[in-house]
Amino acid sequence: MGVEVLIRPAVDDDWAGLWPLWHTVIAAGETYPYDPATSSDAGKAMWLAPPPAWTWVALDPDGRIVGTYQVKPNQLTLGDHVANAGFMVAPEARGLGVGRQLGLHCLAAARDLGYRAMQFNAVVTTNVASLNLWRSLGFIIVGTVPRGFRHAVHGEVDMHIMHRFL
Amino acid sequence: MGVEVLIRPAVDDDWAGLWPLWHTVIAAGETYPYDPATSSDAGKAMWLAPPPAWTWVALDPDGRIVGTYQVKPNQLTLGDHVANAGFMVAPEARGLGVGRQLGLHCLAAARDLGYRAMQFNAVVTTNVASLNLWRSLGFIIVGTVPRGFRHAVHGEVDMHIMHRFL
Repeated sequence: MGVEVLIRPAVDDDWAGLWPLWHTVIAAGETYPYDPATSSDAGKAMWLAPPPAWTWVALDPDGRIVGTYQVKPNQLTLGDHVANAGFMVAPEARGLGVGRQLGLHCLAAARDLGYRAMQFNAVVTTNVASLNLWRSLGFIIVGTVPRGFRHAVHGEVDMHIMHRFL
Repeated sequence: MGVEVLIRPAVDDDWAGLWPLWHTVIAAGETYPYDPATSSDAGKAMWLAPPPAWTWVALDPDGRIVGTYQVKPNQLTLGDHVANAGFMVAPEARGLGVGRQLGLHCLAAARDLGYRAMQFNAVVTTNVASLNLWRSLGFIIVGTVPRGFRHAVHGEVDMHIMHRFL
């Protein structure tokens, strides 16, 4: 079971294929703090931001974008040895191992970029699939922000801070 | 003991008086992740950023700027009910209660701005004065990022995430 994806750096022209996925994830208001009504232009400016941010896309065997991640410094200069990353998988591609492939790729890419650790600041506690994935990839919960996220369905919920060294 | 300060919103023209303080704190590389070599222009752009960030200055009885803080959303839209804040006190004014006055003022200002909680993402564990101040003002440590800060003197040190409801 599962689908093997090709993962490559995102380019500007990918946005047309990325936007439906990005918009679906953001509009749900369940996992990312972005305004659910974020416009395509504003979304592109954030998700395809210039270096030191880097964005990748995952293509299924038909060449469709089914996943993406962005990695960037989690802090300014004196904390920029720690990476932050965000991941999205298209709803129709979930449960097929795409997130795991993106996660493993991102850990390797972050090492290549010189990062020494990776930190997630806002893993919404209701996002069990993500929590399980990151735990299985060696991340641990190093903190929990109470009621830090206004979930579209559940209201104010906690967010975990997750971390692993690279 | 102590000095009573006047705390008011910062204006553009304050930067000339703020910069020596800001530069001294940043150049030390002990408490903030900003590049210690940050230029005056770049520092101004960050510390006097437009709304939703708000910056205040503390003036001693002679009208000198001896402290400052900035408060802003800690996350994008769905997390923007939690404030983040940063504080600086001029070296010559430390130990005189300026930080506490700024902290109390900031908590009130954040409430006025509609925030429901305040979160610090990177309280360097060697910064004992700050840790003690924030604990005494009701903050608790909700997480710790291992070796997240490259301290100019101590090398990689841990950072606490601190939080309190408003």
